[in-house]
This record gives sequence, structure tokens and C-alpha cells, in this order.
Amino acid sequence: MVRRKKEIAVVPVLNIRKGEGRELDDHVIVEEPLEIRVRPYDSDLAEGISVAVTMRTPGDDVALALGFLFSENVIEKVGQVLEVTHLEDADGTLQTNVVEVRLAPGIAFNTHHLSRHVFTSSSCGICGKTTIDEITARVEWDPQARGPVPVRILQQLPERLAAAQTLFAQTGGLHGSALFDLQGQLVAACEDVGRHNALDKLVGTLMQQGGIPARDRILMLSGRIGFELVQKAVCAGIPIIAAIGAPTSLAIELANRFGTTLIGFLKGERFNIYVGDQRVEL
Amino acid sequence: MVRRKKEIAVVPVLNIRKGEGRELDDHVIVEEPLEIRVRPYDSDLAEGISVAVTMRTPGDDVALALGFLFSENVIEKVGQVLEVTHLEDADGTLQTNVVEVRLAPGIAFNTHHLSRHVFTSSSCGICGKTTIDEITARVEWDPQARGPVPVRILQQLPERLAAAQTLFAQTGGLHGSALFDLQGQLVAACEDVGRHNALDKLVGTLMQQGGIPARDRILMLSGRIGFELVQKAVCAGIPIIAAIGAPTSLAIELANRFGTTLIGFLKGERFNIYVGDQRVEL
Repeated sequence: MVRRKKEIAVVPVLNIRKGEGRELDDHVIVEEPLEIRVRPYDSDLAEGISVAVTMRTPGDDVALALGFLFSENVIEKVGQVLEVTHLEDADGTLQTNVVEVRLAPGIAFNTHHLSRHVFTSSSCGICGKTTIDEITARVEWDPQARGPVPVRILQQLPERLAAAQTLFAQTGGLHGSALFDLQGQLVAACEDVGRHNALDKLVGTLMQQGGIPARDRILMLSGRIGFELVQKAVCAGIPIIAAIGAPTSLAIELANRFGTTLIGFLKGERFNIYVGDQRVEL
Repeated sequence: MVRRKKEIAVVPVLNIRKGEGRELDDHVIVEEPLEIRVRPYDSDLAEGISVAVTMRTPGDDVALALGFLFSENVIEKVGQVLEVTHLEDADGTLQTNVVEVRLAPGIAFNTHHLSRHVFTSSSCGICGKTTIDEITARVEWDPQARGPVPVRILQQLPERLAAAQTLFAQTGGLHGSALFDLQGQLVAACEDVGRHNALDKLVGTLMQQGGIPARDRILMLSGRIGFELVQKAVCAGIPIIAAIGAPTSLAIELANRFGTTLIGFLKGERFNIYVGDQRVEL
């Protein structure tokens, strides 16, 4: 993966058009975890207190940390902050995925301010790679599909997902996750205001049905493909993920690690295969 | 607000078409917090351990809890769970926004499994109302705009947001939050793979510029309007929120509480005003 700039990565894709594939370079958005730590001015702790890890696009990290802490009622104005810095490792390497917010003298940090959010249990080094390693360590199955899946079946999935999204049809306001077999028949579908919840509901439904690992299945997503959605699919053993929207850099990296087929921009005649084109029959 | 069923709410809107407004009923998706608790079989605690609060659409709560705990590596299969139940209050009222997952005998609950997620600091009663009350208690300003804003300025905002989304133009893969003044001039814009991050970056940028409370400003969002986005806008003092997508029930309730103008489906000639139409000049 060649990175042109920190917010955008360039990746090879197989672009499918009129049933034929051609290799192209595609620009995808970079997704990396950011850990936000808070350190009171007179703290004698070795490091700040970790208050959140969020999957974000690098850039504007200082503004992101300030805005997050403001909305969480940890700070009221920028004057309560002495500095916001990316930390350095022991060897002086900048940890671009960790920011420490040092509070100004006299500003107390009450963790109760974090009303219902995100205490991370781990403050080890954080980056896309370690995040992927953690998942690799615990997933037991290889994603093996008996495919390949014909292009014409893939092209029917957005419409079949839409047909299964009964709440969306009435409100226009939520995400869908649907599972299909390799012939394009619907296995299960769930909807939610949150895309992660929609997939959690789907995976939970599969668990109840004894359907995990979901080896010969295609996951169809109504939106974009973030890292955490690929993570949930990989954990459930799903070998093929297709989505109407774009994948992120870290979603592609995780799919590469597991050999999960990853298809983006699946809307009409054209779509992109980012990983695992051997499972698609042109 | 009249609820027809638990996933969908019916709300009055002012539908704007060709510069004229007419009152309609609109179906919006319900958003409510769900707290997930885990309780080991032999636990002598009075209640389960709270592991997450997620904003979700009610329904499939059992599947959501199972799928979440599976993806978080707390459980490996449904057989490790004895039961999943909505809790009851002391007076026997069902707490529809709290589920307790009781683990089967011999299944240990190691909180370290929760790799980088969400320990909630509060396990008090949770519902949309208490969530809104918490915000009301800490927001100091009334959202006062010197508007009203002409419809033609609102209609230009989606295009101006798109013009400010330079990364989206290259990747098609991320959310934008932009702030405009009441004449439609861009004040600041931020992008991120996460919609919450995009708004946090924007609010942080405003803090750095001394722009909070952002009293005479319009927030334009590229996607849908969830509760937490309205929360962040309200905290920043923004009086008008417009979005290309749909609002949720709880987003509308929060906007109603603060008198924040809330506009959804702002794409072309038509859009809906859910709250605060006095700030829009027809």
C-alpha cells in the first residue's frame, strides 16, 4: 500500500465494468486508531489517563481531542488546556496515534465527567498493525468459501438488501446488514441507526441459529466499510464482504490479512474488488 | 410524539417544497440507549457488570447483546450464555433499555477481553430522557440565532459542504461537518471516517478560534442526524443543524428541548424542518 499523504492511501483494485475486470489504482481514506489521554498539570503519573480510543482519519488530531473532551464535559474552553501533543516513544519516535491533553494548572480532571463513554482497558502502543494482530491472535478459522460467486449475483445484492430493509423504506434513516448464501438467497437481515449495531444484531442472530462460522456466506452492508465492520465479519467467519460504500485503508489491510474478499461501491454495473478477487466469477 | 411501533416514531414536520411549507407527519427511526451488562453465573454482585452503552434502534436487543459480546471476544458461542433478559425495576417495570447477559456455569468473565472498548462509568437508570436531562444540566446557553435564514441559503449548503470535502471528492469514503454563517459563508469544515469525529474536529477547531458558543451559525452534516451529533452541536451553542440525511427520534427530542432548529433531507428543492421553523424564512 503506497501512501501519498496521511489522509489518503492508494491501493490496487480490480474494477469490474460490464462483466470485465481491469486493474486500477484507487484512492481510499486512511483509518487509524487514536488514543486520547488526559494528564492533569500536577499529575505524578508516568503517563496520562487514557479516556478514549476512536477510529479516525489522521489529521486535526489536536482539534479532535479538544472537541471530544469539550463534548464530554471534561473541559469547558481551550484555556483549560496547557498543550496537546503527540507522545514520543522511549527512542524518540513520534506516536502519531496517541495524543496527550495536558490540563492547565488548577484544572481538575474528574473522570465522572465522562458520562457514559469509553474507558479503554489497554494503553499499550496502538496502531493499525497492533489492532490487526490482536484480532489475528483470536480468530480460529480461515475464511473459506466454496465460490466463486458470479458477478450477476453480486449485482443483485443491493436491491435485495434494500428489499430486506423494511424500516429504512419507511424512514430513510438507518443502516442495514444482510447475509446471503452464495446463490444470493437471503439468510438474515438486521437494521439499526448504528452500522455497528446492525452487524452485531446480525451476528447475534446467526449465533442463535447456529450459523457461525458463516463460511459460505456473503455479507452485504448498506454503507461504507470501516475496520470494525470487517473485524466483526472476520470473527464470524464470513469470507465475502460487499458494500454500497467505500472501504477504509485499515478495512482493506485487515481483509488482506485474512484473505477476506472485500467489494466496495457495489451499486450498479460497476464495482471494485479490493481483496480476494478469486472468489468472484467474471 | 406519537409512537406507532417501537422502531418507528411519527413526528410532525414542516415540509418545504418550492419555497412553501406544509405540515406533514413524518416517520423517523427510534434511537434509544441500550446498556449491556454481563453477569457471571456464580456472581454475588447485586447486578451485572456494565460493559457498554450503545445508541441503538430498539428490537433484536438479545441478538445485539450476543453479537456485541461475541465480536468483543467475551463469549465464543451462544452456549456460554444462560439467558439474556431485560431487567426489571424494583416496582416490576421492565427496563427496556438495559439487557443483562447471564453467563452459563463455569464461564469466566474477564474484563480484559474487552480489548479497547467502552467501560461505562455510570450504571444508573438509562433512557432517552435521562440522557437528555444530563445534557440539559450542563449546557449554559440558549441557542439564539439572529436569523431567520432564507430557504435559498439553506439550499446552497449541501453543495458548499461538498466543495469543502476535498478528501471525500478523492475517496468517496468519509463524513463531513461544516459550519456556515447565516449568510451561507463557510466558517470551518472537517472530514473524518467517523461522523462523530468529523464534528469533534469541527468543535475543536472552533475552540481554537475562540468561536464558542457558535451562536449565529449553521451546522451542515453530510449524513444522518443521530442524538450524539445534536448533543455536540448543542454543547457548542449552535442554533441550526441541517443534514442531508434523516434525524432520529432522540435527535428530535433533544432539539425540541433546546429549541435547536433541525433540518433533515436537505438535498435539493425539498427538505423537512423538524424543529424550530421560526429560524427559516420561506
